[in-house]
Amino acid sequence: ARRGLAEAVLCDGKTVEHLHGIAGELAARESRTLFTRVREDQVAVLLEQLPGAAYDPVARLVAWPGEPPEPTGGLVVVVAAGTSDLPVAREAALTARHLGRETRTIADVGVAGLHRILGRLEVLREARAIVVAAGMDGALPGVVAGLVTAPVIAVPTSVGYGAAFGGLAPLLTMLNACAPGVAVVNIDNGYGAGHMAAQIAAPV
Amino acid sequence: ARRGLAEAVLCDGKTVEHLHGIAGELAARESRTLFTRVREDQVAVLLEQLPGAAYDPVARLVAWPGEPPEPTGGLVVVVAAGTSDLPVAREAALTARHLGRETRTIADVGVAGLHRILGRLEVLREARAIVVAAGMDGALPGVVAGLVTAPVIAVPTSVGYGAAFGGLAPLLTMLNACAPGVAVVNIDNGYGAGHMAAQIAAPV
Amino acid sequence: ARRGLAEAVLCDGKTVEHLHGIAGELAARESRTLFTRVREDQVAVLLEQLPGAAYDPVARLVAWPGEPPEPTGGLVVVVAAGTSDLPVAREAALTARHLGRETRTIADVGVAGLHRILGRLEVLREARAIVVAAGMDGALPGVVAGLVTAPVIAVPTSVGYGAAFGGLAPLLTMLNACAPGVAVVNIDNGYGAGHMAAQIAAPV
Amino acid sequence: ARRGLAEAVLCDGKTVEHLHGIAGELAARESRTLFTRVREDQVAVLLEQLPGAAYDPVARLVAWPGEPPEPTGGLVVVVAAGTSDLPVAREAALTARHLGRETRTIADVGVAGLHRILGRLEVLREARAIVVAAGMDGALPGVVAGLVTAPVIAVPTSVGYGAAFGGLAPLLTMLNACAPGVAVVNIDNGYGAGHMAAQIAAPV
Amino acid sequence: ARRGLAEAVLCDGKTVEHLHGIAGELAARESRTLFTRVREDQVAVLLEQLPGAAYDPVARLVAWPGEPPEPTGGLVVVVAAGTSDLPVAREAALTARHLGRETRTIADVGVAGLHRILGRLEVLREARAIVVAAGMDGALPGVVAGLVTAPVIAVPTSVGYGAAFGGLAPLLTMLNACAPGVAVVNIDNGYGAGHMAAQIAAPV
Amino acid sequence: ARRGLAEAVLCDGKTVEHLHGIAGELAARESRTLFTRVREDQVAVLLEQLPGAAYDPVARLVAWPGEPPEPTGGLVVVVAAGTSDLPVAREAALTARHLGRETRTIADVGVAGLHRILGRLEVLREARAIVVAAGMDGALPGVVAGLVTAPVIAVPTSVGYGAAFGGLAPLLTMLNACAPGVAVVNIDNGYGAGHMAAQIAAPV
Amino acid sequence: ARRGLAEAVLCDGKTVEHLHGIAGELAARESRTLFTRVREDQVAVLLEQLPGAAYDPVARLVAWPGEPPEPTGGLVVVVAAGTSDLPVAREAALTARHLGRETRTIADVGVAGLHRILGRLEVLREARAIVVAAGMDGALPGVVAGLVTAPVIAVPTSVGYGAAFGGLAPLLTMLNACAPGVAVVNIDNGYGAGHMAAQIAAPV
Amino acid sequence: ARRGLAEAVLCDGKTVEHLHGIAGELAARESRTLFTRVREDQVAVLLEQLPGAAYDPVARLVAWPGEPPEPTGGLVVVVAAGTSDLPVAREAALTARHLGRETRTIADVGVAGLHRILGRLEVLREARAIVVAAGMDGALPGVVAGLVTAPVIAVPTSVGYGAAFGGLAPLLTMLNACAPGVAVVNIDNGYGAGHMAAQIAAPV
Ligand SMILES: Nc1ncnc2c1ncn2[C@@H]1O[C@H](COP(=O)(O)O)[C@@H](O)[C@H]1O
Ligand SMILES: Nc1ncnc2c1ncn2[C@@H]1O[C@H](COP(=O)(O)O)[C@@H](O)[C@H]1O
Ligand SMILES: Nc1ncnc2c1ncn2[C@@H]1O[C@H](COP(=O)(O)O)[C@@H](O)[C@H]1O
Ligand SMILES: Nc1ncnc2c1ncn2[C@@H]1O[C@H](COP(=O)(O)O)[C@@H](O)[C@H]1O
Ligand SMILES: [Mg+2]
Ligand SMILES: [Mg+2]
Ligand SMILES: [Mg+2]
Ligand SMILES: [Mg+2]
Ligand SMILES: [Mg+2]
Ligand SMILES: [Mg+2]
Ligand SMILES: [Mg+2]
Ligand SMILES: [Mg+2]
Repeated sequence: ARRGLAEAVLCDGKTVEHLHGIAGELAARESRTLFTRVREDQVAVLLEQLPGAAYDPVARLVAWPGEPPEPTGGLVVVVAAGTSDLPVAREAALTARHLGRETRTIADVGVAGLHRILGRLEVLREARAIVVAAGMDGALPGVVAGLVTAPVIAVPTSVGYGAAFGGLAPLLTMLNACAPGVAVVNIDNGYGAGHMAAQIAAPV
Repeated sequence: ARRGLAEAVLCDGKTVEHLHGIAGELAARESRTLFTRVREDQVAVLLEQLPGAAYDPVARLVAWPGEPPEPTGGLVVVVAAGTSDLPVAREAALTARHLGRETRTIADVGVAGLHRILGRLEVLREARAIVVAAGMDGALPGVVAGLVTAPVIAVPTSVGYGAAFGGLAPLLTMLNACAPGVAVVNIDNGYGAGHMAAQIAAPV
Repeated sequence: ARRGLAEAVLCDGKTVEHLHGIAGELAARESRTLFTRVREDQVAVLLEQLPGAAYDPVARLVAWPGEPPEPTGGLVVVVAAGTSDLPVAREAALTARHLGRETRTIADVGVAGLHRILGRLEVLREARAIVVAAGMDGALPGVVAGLVTAPVIAVPTSVGYGAAFGGLAPLLTMLNACAPGVAVVNIDNGYGAGHMAAQIAAPV
Repeated sequence: ARRGLAEAVLCDGKTVEHLHGIAGELAARESRTLFTRVREDQVAVLLEQLPGAAYDPVARLVAWPGEPPEPTGGLVVVVAAGTSDLPVAREAALTARHLGRETRTIADVGVAGLHRILGRLEVLREARAIVVAAGMDGALPGVVAGLVTAPVIAVPTSVGYGAAFGGLAPLLTMLNACAPGVAVVNIDNGYGAGHMAAQIAAPV
Repeated sequence: ARRGLAEAVLCDGKTVEHLHGIAGELAARESRTLFTRVREDQVAVLLEQLPGAAYDPVARLVAWPGEPPEPTGGLVVVVAAGTSDLPVAREAALTARHLGRETRTIADVGVAGLHRILGRLEVLREARAIVVAAGMDGALPGVVAGLVTAPVIAVPTSVGYGAAFGGLAPLLTMLNACAPGVAVVNIDNGYGAGHMAAQIAAPV
Repeated sequence: ARRGLAEAVLCDGKTVEHLHGIAGELAARESRTLFTRVREDQVAVLLEQLPGAAYDPVARLVAWPGEPPEPTGGLVVVVAAGTSDLPVAREAALTARHLGRETRTIADVGVAGLHRILGRLEVLREARAIVVAAGMDGALPGVVAGLVTAPVIAVPTSVGYGAAFGGLAPLLTMLNACAPGVAVVNIDNGYGAGHMAAQIAAPV
Repeated sequence: ARRGLAEAVLCDGKTVEHLHGIAGELAARESRTLFTRVREDQVAVLLEQLPGAAYDPVARLVAWPGEPPEPTGGLVVVVAAGTSDLPVAREAALTARHLGRETRTIADVGVAGLHRILGRLEVLREARAIVVAAGMDGALPGVVAGLVTAPVIAVPTSVGYGAAFGGLAPLLTMLNACAPGVAVVNIDNGYGAGHMAAQIAAPV
Repeated sequence: ARRGLAEAVLCDGKTVEHLHGIAGELAARESRTLFTRVREDQVAVLLEQLPGAAYDPVARLVAWPGEPPEPTGGLVVVVAAGTSDLPVAREAALTARHLGRETRTIADVGVAGLHRILGRLEVLREARAIVVAAGMDGALPGVVAGLVTAPVIAVPTSVGYGAAFGGLAPLLTMLNACAPGVAVVNIDNGYGAGHMAAQIAAPV
C-alpha cells in the first residue's frame, strides 16, 4: 500500500480479465486493497482470487482483507442527507473504516426539516472529520459546517432529476457554501471523501 | 396599467432619448408605473418628466407616483440571506409595496448561522407570501420553505465569485430545493419576485 | 403531515425494500402521503402496504389514501402545452387535488396556434393559481401570464430533442419570461408545481 | 460584390489602420459594401475614404454607397419584440434594404401582450420573408411563425440579464420553436438575418 | 392543414393509445399529415388507422396520404455531409416533397475532400433553397453558402462522439458560419429544415 | 467569533457605508475578524475603524487585530503552482496564520518542470495539511497528493485564458484528481482553503 | 488512399447494409483502409467482404489489409495513463502502425505515482512523436511534455464519472497544459491521435 | 532554456515589479526567452532590463534577444482565416521563428470564399507543419488538413460574438474536424501553436 494506506482499484471501466490479473497480483503481494465501483459481473472473480475479501452491494465495494484494521485516530461521522444518498455515504464510511478510523453514520437529515440535523448535534460534535453526502440542492454540508468546528468533506451525489444535471447542482452549491470549513470531492465519490476524512482524523 | 397592476419599464438597455419618450407618454396617461434597473444617467430624465416620482438608488427603481397605494391583501415578507443581497431584496420589497401589499424585510439570516433565521420564525409565519434573495449557495429558500406554509419565491443573486458563475449556482440550488413550496425567478430579478409575491398575497 | 399538508416520498432512487419500510411506518402513522416518480417495480409493494391507496400510471403517482380531501380554497388550473406534457401536468393536478384544491386541466394549447389558448380565457381567469407545463420552446407560461392576473407556476418538461437539452431550453425561456407573474420549478417537477399552486390557492 | 450581393466587412475586431486599407481598396473597386458592428473610433476613417457613404449609429452600420438600390422582389418585414431589440432589428432592415428589398419594421410587440402582435397581422401577411429579433424569452418568432406562411428568420438578442446568459436563452427557445417555419442566426446577428431574408425575398 | 401546409405530429413522446386517437381523428378530417420521429412500436397503428399512408424507416416518417402532391415552386436540394447524416437529410427531403416541392439529394460531400462538393456545383446552383445536414464539425453549410446565392438551411446532426456533445458542436459552428446566407434549425430537425426550405421555394 | 475561530467578512459586494457600520460594531465587540476580497476604496475605512488592523494588498486581506495569535497545532504548507497564483496562496496562508497555525509557502513549482516540486518534498512531508493553488491545467494538487500523506486542499485559480474559462478547467481537473486525498474549494477561494487547512491542522 | 495514407471509415453510426456496400467497393479498389469504432454486429460483414482484414476487439478496429506496412520514419510512443485508457491508446498505436510507423506502448503511468512515468524516460526520449491518452484529471500529457522535446498529442478519454463529464474535464486540462508542446484531439479519438503522430514522425 | 528551446513567460497576470525581477534574473543568465501576452504597462520594464530585446505590439510579444536564430529544420506555414485572427497568427509565427524555424504567413483565406485557400496550395504543400488560426466557425483547419499531408495545429481565436462564446465554438469545431491530421491548442494560444509547429518541423 502506498504510504501505509490501502490501495484502491476503480473497477467500473475494467474488463473481468483485467481485474483477474490485478487481483491475482495483489493476492501474491498481500497488500490491503479496496475495489470501488464494482460491477455485478466483477464480484465473483474478486471474491475467488482474494479469499477473505468482503463485498458490500450497497456501496459496490470489495475490501480485502474483509476485516478492517483496529480503529485509531479520531471519529469520522458520515451524514446522508436523504436515504437515496446512502450508497455514497456507505462507500465513504466503509473506506474510512478500512483505512483504520472508527465511523458513525447518520441518515435522512436533509435541510427541508431542520429539526432532524439539529437533533444530531451531539454526535456531530464528537467527530474529528465529517463527510456529508447530498444530492439535489446540496445544502446540507454548509449547514453542518455552520454547526461544528470539525472540517466537512462534501460529496455531491447524482440523486435527483432535471436541473440537478447529474450532480452538477449540488456540486456548485457545495463549492459556494457560505460557511467556511467545507471542501468538496467529485460527484458520487464516496471513496475519495472517506479517504480524505480518514487522513484528517488520522492519529498525529 | 395592465389588469390593474402597475406597468414596469426595464430601463437598462434603453437610451435616454427613448426613456424620455416613454416617460412623456406615461405622464400624459397618468398610469402607475415602475422603472426598473435604472442606470444613473437615466434618473434625471425620469424625475423631470414624471413630477412626484421617487427614486431608490439601492434598488435602482423609480416609482411613479412615488407614494404607494394603501396596502391591501396579505403580508409579503422579503428575506435577504446576506447584506450583499439587499439591493435585490429591496427591489422586491418596493415592487410589492407599490403593487399594494404591506411588506417586511429581514436581512443577514444566511444558513451558515441557523439561529439567525430560526430567530425570525414569528414574522415569517405571518406572511402570506415570502421572497428569499440569496447568492452563492442559494440554500436559504429551501430552509425557509421547510419552516413555513406560505409559498416561497426564490431569487438567486449574482453575489459571489468563481463557481457561483454569476448566479447560476444559487439558481440551480433553488430549482432543486428539497422542500416543496419554492418557485424561482431569474437571477437578480427582485422585480419579478416582488410582483409574484404581490399577486399571491392579493386580496381574494 | 408537515404543517397540515400531505408528505411526499420521491421513489425513483429508492430500493423496493427501502420503500417497503417507509410505507409500513406510514401505514401505522395514518399520515396522508403522496409517492412520486414511482417505478413500475415499486407499485405493488406500495399498494399492498397501504390499503386504499390509488395509483395513477400516467403521473406515476401513488396517493394514500386514494380519496382526496374535500376541496377548499381557490381553483387551480393546470395547462399542458402539448399532449406529450400531459404526464407532468397530471402529476401537478393530482398533487393539488390531494392537497385539497379543486383543479381543472387544459391540454394541447401551445403557442404555435394561439387561437387554442385564447379560446380558454374564461377558465384561465377563474383560477386562483395556474400551472403551465411546456417543453421545447417553453413559451406558453409567459403568454398565459400576460393574459391573466393569477400567478403562474411554470414547469419546464424534458419533452423535445436536440437543443431542448433535456428541458434546459424551456427552463431558461421560463426564467426569462417577459410577462411578470411567472415563477419556475425544476424540469418535470409536476409535484412541486402542484404543491406550490395548492399553497397559493389555499383558503386564507 | 460576391454573386451580385453587397460585400460586408465585420469591423469590431479590426484596427483603424486596417480598415483604412480595406476601405481604400474598395473605393478603387467601386464595389457596394456594408460595414457592420462599426466602433465609434472607426466611423470617421470610413466616411472619409468612401465619399457618399452613410452611417447609422443605432445599427452601427456604414453603407457604401449610402443610397440603397431600387427595391426588387418581395417585402421583408422586420419585427422587434421589445424596444431594446431595435438596434438589431435596424441592422437587419438596413441590410435587407441595401441588398435591394423593400422593408417594413414593427416594434414593441412582445408576447407579454398578445394584442400587439395580433394587431399587426395584415402587414405580417404581406411579407415574403420575416425577421424577428427578440431577447430574454425569445418567444415571439415561434408565435409569428404560427400566424403566417412566410418563413421566419429568428435573431436572438443579448438583451436581458441573469439567466438570459447573453442571448443563450432566446437562442435555445428559437431553435426549439414549436411552430415550423423558423430558422435561427447568431445572437445579435441582424446583418445575417437581413441578408438571409433578402435572399429569400429576392426576385425569382 | 394549417395555412394550406401539411400538419405534423411529433410521435416520439406519445403513447400508442394517444396516437391511435390522433390518427383516428385525422382519418375523419382527411387532412394531409406527416408523422415525425415515429417509434417502431407506433408504425402499425398509424398504417392501420390511415389507409394509404407510407412509412419511411430511414427517415422514421409516416406520410398520409403516402402519395405527395404534384411539385410546384422551385427546387429544394438536400445535402448530407456524411452518409451517417442521411436519415436527417431524408427526413428533410421527404418533408419538402410532401409539402409540394421537387427535391434532389446529394450525399457524402463533406469538407475533408473539397473536390466532392465542388463537383456538385451545377445542381446546387439550380436550387431555390438548400438544406445541408452535417454533424461533427458542421462546416459544410458555410462552405456551400459561399458557393451559391440560394439561402441555406443548416441542420446540425447528433452524428459524432466526444466533443461533438450530441450535436452542440455543429450547431455552434453553423450559427457562426462566416458566409452569410445560413440559418439554422434544431439538432436532427430534418422536418423543420425541409419545411422551411419548402416555404422558401414555394411558388410566389 | 463563531466557535473560537475568527469571523470573516466578504467585502467585495458591500458599500463603504455598509462596511463602516460592520467595522464599528466589531470594534466594540473586540472580536477577531478577517476582511477578505477588500476593494481599494474600502481599505481606509477599515483601518480607521479598527486601530491595529493590518492590510495585505497582495492577498487583499485586512486582519484585525493585525497581530496573529501564537501558533498551535500542526504546520500548514501553502503551494502556488505559478507566480500568478501567489495572491490566492497568500490569502490562504494569512488566513491559516490568523486562525493560529504556523505556515510555510512554496511558489513556482508547477508540473511543467517536475524537479521543482520534487525538490521540496522535505517541507511538504512536514505538513499536517497542504493547500495547493493552481490555475490553467490545475494538475499540481493531484501530483502533490501522490507524494505525501497529508490531506491536500486544492484551490483552482482564475489565472489563464481561453479554455481555462475563469477557473473552470482547473476546478474540474482537481475534482477528478487521480490520487486520493484531494478536496476542492471555490475558484480563487484562498480564504476557504486556509480556513479548512487550519481546522485540519488544529491541535487535537 | 488520400495522399498515400490509409483511408478511414467511422463505423459507429452506419447500418450493416451501408458498410457492406462501402467494403465491397474498397475490396475492388484495393485501397488500404482502417475501420474505426466498429460495432460488434458490423465485424462479420467487414471480415467477409475484405479477406485478409484483421480485427482488434480492444481497439474496435478493423484494418485491411491486416498486415501493416514496413515501418519508416521515427518512433511513435503511445502512453496510457490508467489501464482503463488502454482501448483508446491501442486504437492510436494500431493506427500509427498501419500508417507505417514503429510504435511502443506504455501503460499505467498516471501522475498519482510519479515514479512510474519517471521510470520510463528512456523510451519517451527515443520518440519522434508521443500520444498520451488519459481520463479523469488528464494531467499526464502536460507532465510528459515537460520531460521531453518530442511533440505530445493528448487524447482525453471518457474514463471516469461525475465531474469528468464524459471527458470534458481532461479535455480542458489538456488544452490548458502548462508545458508547451501539447496539442489535443477529440475525446476518445485514438484514431486521430495516432494519425497525427504518424504524420509528425513520417520520414522527411 | 529547457531542453534547448527558448523559455516563455506568460506576462498577463503578473505585476510590473514581479516582471522586473524575472527579467533581471534572465538578463544575468543570458537565456533566450519569449514574453507572451505582454500588457502595455509591462513593455518598458522588459525593454529596459533586457537590452536588445524586441517588442511586437500586434502579437504582444517581447523576444530576447530580439534577433532570432538561424533557421533550421522544415518550413512552418501560419494561416489566418480572417484579418482579425492576425494577432494570434503573428504570435504563432514569431514564436516558431524565435525557436529556429523559417516561417511563411497567409491571411484572409477563410472558407466563405474557397478560391482563396485553394489559390495557396503551393505554399501549404511546402510546409513541414501548418498552424491555422480561425475564429467564429473555425472551419478552416479541417479544410486545410484535407488538402495537405503536413500536420495541422489549429488555434481557435476569440474573434466573433454571440454564440462564438469567446472561442468555444471554433474550439469545438476544430476538435471535431472531419479530416484527420488536426490537433488543437487553447483559444488564442498562438504561442503554444507556434511552439508545437516548431517542434514538429525541427531538424531530425
Ligand atoms: N471510486 C473512485 N473514485 C475516484 N478515484 C478512485 C476511485 N477508486 C480508486 N480511485 C483512484 O484511482 C486510482 C486507481 O486507478 P486504476 O489504476 O485505474 O485502478 C487510485 O489511485 C485510486 O486512488
Ligand atoms: N427588472 C425586470 N426584470 C424582468 N422583467 C422586467 C423587469 N422590468 C420590467 N420587466 C418586464 O419587461 C416588460 C417591459 O419591457 P420593455 O417594454 O422593454 O420596457 C414588462 O412587461 C415588464 O413586466
Ligand atoms: N420532428 C419535429 N421536430 C420539431 N417539431 C416538430 C416535429 N414534428 C412535428 N413538429 C411540430 O410540433 C407540433 C406538433 O406537436 P404535437 O402537437 O405534440 O404533435 C407541430 O406544430 C409541428 O410543427
Ligand atoms: N501565451 C501562453 N499560453 C500558454 N502557456 C504559456 C504562454 N506563455 C508562456 N506559457 C507557458 O507558461 C509557463 C510559464 O508560466 P509562468 O511561470 O507563469 O511565466 C511556461 O512553461 C510557458 O511554456
Ligand atoms: Mg464549521
Ligand atoms: Mg413550506
Ligand atoms: Mg399575469
Ligand atoms: Mg408559419
Ligand atoms: Mg451564399
Ligand atoms: Mg496523498
Ligand atoms: Mg516538451
Ligand atoms: Mg491532412
